[in-house]
Amino acid sequence: MLFQVEMTVKLPPDMPAEQAAKIKATEKAYSQKLQDQGKWRHLWRVAGSYANVSIFDVEDNAELQKIVSGLPLFPYMEISVKPLCRHPSSIRDDDR
Amino acid sequence: MLFQVEMTVKLPPDMPAEQAAKIKATEKAYSQKLQDQGKWRHLWRVAGSYANVSIFDVEDNAELQKIVSGLPLFPYMEISVKPLCRHPSSIRDDDR
Amino acid sequence: MLFQVEMTVKLPPDMPAEQAAKIKATEKAYSQKLQDQGKWRHLWRVAGSYANVSIFDVEDNAELQKIVSGLPLFPYMEISVKPLCRHPSSIRDDDR
Amino acid sequence: MLFQVEMTVKLPPDMPAEQAAKIKATEKAYSQKLQDQGKWRHLWRVAGSYANVSIFDVEDNAELQKIVSGLPLFPYMEISVKPLCRHPSSIRDDDR
Amino acid sequence: MLFQVEMTVKLPPDMPAEQAAKIKATEKAYSQKLQDQGKWRHLWRVAGSYANVSIFDVEDNAELQKIVSGLPLFPYMEISVKPLCRHPSSIRDDDR
Amino acid sequence: MLFQVEMTVKLPPDMPAEQAAKIKATEKAYSQKLQDQGKWRHLWRVAGSYANVSIFDVEDNAELQKIVSGLPLFPYMEISVKPLCRHPSSIRDDDR
Amino acid sequence: MLFQVEMTVKLPPDMPAEQAAKIKATEKAYSQKLQDQGKWRHLWRVAGSYANVSIFDVEDNAELQKIVSGLPLFPYMEISVKPLCRHPSSIRDDDR
Amino acid sequence: MLFQVEMTVKLPPDMPAEQAAKIKATEKAYSQKLQDQGKWRHLWRVAGSYANVSIFDVEDNAELQKIVSGLPLFPYMEISVKPLCRHPSSIRDDDR
Amino acid sequence: MLFQVEMTVKLPPDMPAEQAAKIKATEKAYSQKLQDQGKWRHLWRVAGSYANVSIFDVEDNAELQKIVSGLPLFPYMEISVKPLCRHPSSIRDDDR
Amino acid sequence: MLFQVEMTVKLPPDMPAEQAAKIKATEKAYSQKLQDQGKWRHLWRVAGSYANVSIFDVEDNAELQKIVSGLPLFPYMEISVKPLCRHPSSIRDDDR
Repeated sequence: MLFQVEMTVKLPPDMPAEQAAKIKATEKAYSQKLQDQGKWRHLWRVAGSYANVSIFDVEDNAELQKIVSGLPLFPYMEISVKPLCRHPSSIRDDDR
Repeated sequence: MLFQVEMTVKLPPDMPAEQAAKIKATEKAYSQKLQDQGKWRHLWRVAGSYANVSIFDVEDNAELQKIVSGLPLFPYMEISVKPLCRHPSSIRDDDR
Repeated sequence: MLFQVEMTVKLPPDMPAEQAAKIKATEKAYSQKLQDQGKWRHLWRVAGSYANVSIFDVEDNAELQKIVSGLPLFPYMEISVKPLCRHPSSIRDDDR
Repeated sequence: MLFQVEMTVKLPPDMPAEQAAKIKATEKAYSQKLQDQGKWRHLWRVAGSYANVSIFDVEDNAELQKIVSGLPLFPYMEISVKPLCRHPSSIRDDDR
Repeated sequence: MLFQVEMTVKLPPDMPAEQAAKIKATEKAYSQKLQDQGKWRHLWRVAGSYANVSIFDVEDNAELQKIVSGLPLFPYMEISVKPLCRHPSSIRDDDR
Repeated sequence: MLFQVEMTVKLPPDMPAEQAAKIKATEKAYSQKLQDQGKWRHLWRVAGSYANVSIFDVEDNAELQKIVSGLPLFPYMEISVKPLCRHPSSIRDDDR
Repeated sequence: MLFQVEMTVKLPPDMPAEQAAKIKATEKAYSQKLQDQGKWRHLWRVAGSYANVSIFDVEDNAELQKIVSGLPLFPYMEISVKPLCRHPSSIRDDDR
Repeated sequence: MLFQVEMTVKLPPDMPAEQAAKIKATEKAYSQKLQDQGKWRHLWRVAGSYANVSIFDVEDNAELQKIVSGLPLFPYMEISVKPLCRHPSSIRDDDR
Repeated sequence: MLFQVEMTVKLPPDMPAEQAAKIKATEKAYSQKLQDQGKWRHLWRVAGSYANVSIFDVEDNAELQKIVSGLPLFPYMEISVKPLCRHPSSIRDDDR
Repeated sequence: MLFQVEMTVKLPPDMPAEQAAKIKATEKAYSQKLQDQGKWRHLWRVAGSYANVSIFDVEDNAELQKIVSGLPLFPYMEISVKPLCRHPSSIRDDDR
């Protein structure tokens, strides 16, 4: 089941550079593991921003909540969620 | 080059059913031709709405404008556009 | 899987009374059938408005889309959707 | 008398983990006591967020105020309130 | 139990003057009957607008819904509702 | 001359409890003196919030400004003001 | 007593030109009479729009309401009102 | 050439009183000098707020920018700007 | 003197195609004449929309108003205006 | 390929003057180098604000992201991006 999630990162400007670097590294590893598993299906940067557009493929709402609230950057992000489903005009098999 | 485009359809409630059906059929054909060509890369329905989330893969801004303004439903839609680019944490080759 | 859906009805003031009455009757029957099936779990009027707060229990996003877009009043409503899941502090078994 | 209440938690990122844990534990106990009493009728997590949707069953506006303003997380939340009442299409006896 | 209700009237500019006058007369009678009964406790015009601020004193949410949805101008108004209760600093006995 | 004023209090979460208690006590005394004088005509809590709805009866805009800007909580509040006047349908003598 | 009022005109595009011209002429006469009387103290066009910024000098809220609701264009305008008073740094005698 | 400028002051609540007093005194002197020169033509307090409505009479956009960005309170204000010009219905010679 | 102006066209969907074509042709001629004169300095389409971003170079606010309100599409557009001036970091002579 | 970018600077009021001056100097050098290269085509100050309107001429979305996210003031700015393309009514060769 697919969800579009948009995340905008708002790190406090006075966060020590070292702490920021550490969170970002943990976030990257966390994200890549989920991509490997096929649960984080797409991840794009929105050009000109510190934001991304992501497509998640999860079992249900509960798994979405588990994945998103587990993001190391979760406390520093504004997040919006849209549930997706197959569009009647889509010709792509995996756009379910 | 990728763009995320969100479209919300607002057909006037008093449009004759036949006219609406015709526009939607033309829209479907238009959309599927662009999907075939690889220019309309993804197309999802936003669940609980008359809206979609789409990913376009175009040459440049001008081609995006040509495709979007050519949509048969263009006069009846609210449209938002986000330019996308590769995310440094993405592991997927075609998420450029 | 649960979703909260808020619907605000905006009937055109010049819709003939008979037509409005007919749509509302169809909507009521449609809604009560889904309540009977357990898919429309709760339905409340928001006091002082022509709006409701609803809780749906569906298989997945696709079923939500099918039910909501099938509402006879769908072309006349503003609709917002929130995916729900179990809250770690809930003590109620069916608040999943 | 029913109210829908949506709460979004905004803990300051620099709150010490121990203090946050303590507030959350107090909040959980406070919430579960009210659920036991039947006053906090439903409690759901909004998937992909640090927010909840709740349904309260209280005597009157004053009791709602007493319960909500007594929440341990009250100073850290954005809260919206909607008064609910029976929907004419509802078939569920306790959706009053 | 008190509610603050703000109503903004949006009559279609092309409504025939006679029809508008009739609705307004019915609205006035409806409003004055409820004021007589003590249910519509205050009614003020917002200066420089076609809007009012009202205070209702009703049994519960259901009665508020019954009164507000019964307003002859209901289909032509934007309405917002705030539940009120006694303020701990109030010295006025009937500001409950 | 009447004004509706809505005030939402936003105390910084890290304000020492003693300081907050002192400001609130001063605010209460200030408010009750103005209520005694008939200038602060109504004061209600908005249920489920740290906000109030107030009706002021003042000589002119300048007196409104003097009273509101003199509130001990003024630096910590979001405030909106609506000038009121008699509604043609009001039957209450002092709703001028 | 001064009020700043901003008015944005939204004439329906299908209003017959003759009717529009007539309303605008009546509006102009109405406005100039009030300017003559000193009640409509300033009137400026907002450059690049069909909107104005006005300063009214009236007895009280009731007179503001009488003047503004009497505007021939009143049913076709979005209007916002701000009560003004003397600024402590003003050196201009009539900026009261 | 005239501009309407609205300024809302947002001083950090924890700014030392002495520092705030100093900035305000500098602001007052700065403002009164410009009023003396005829460049800051009107200055009103918005009643019930820490905001003002001002009318500036400047040579061009560049002078507006120089004056506004030179305000001692500039870093602490939300500012909106509207270019003004003569209204065809104005009868006042200096409302150009 | 420079202004950035953003215009979004909202033609009524039921405007006859011939009438729309005529207005657009007039608009194009009007726009190109002003571009020739150097008053409409830049004109870009916003990709994926029926909107443009324009830079005007005019004598003063009054000339901006004259040009913008004279646009054949003026009654059908949402328009926002930003006064521009030279940026201290600009190295381009005509970005004044 | 052109993009309009609007940037509003929000420096924390308590940033030491020296640190602010250093960031601004770096920003200026960074900006002027990109102007020299033809990538930052226009740069204007929005009069009455700490904001700018810029036009970038880049290879693709990825280069836009690289340039904007590399701005020394990037962590302190609110940024909005609009993709531009040639307008059919433009007569200026380089407004592509």
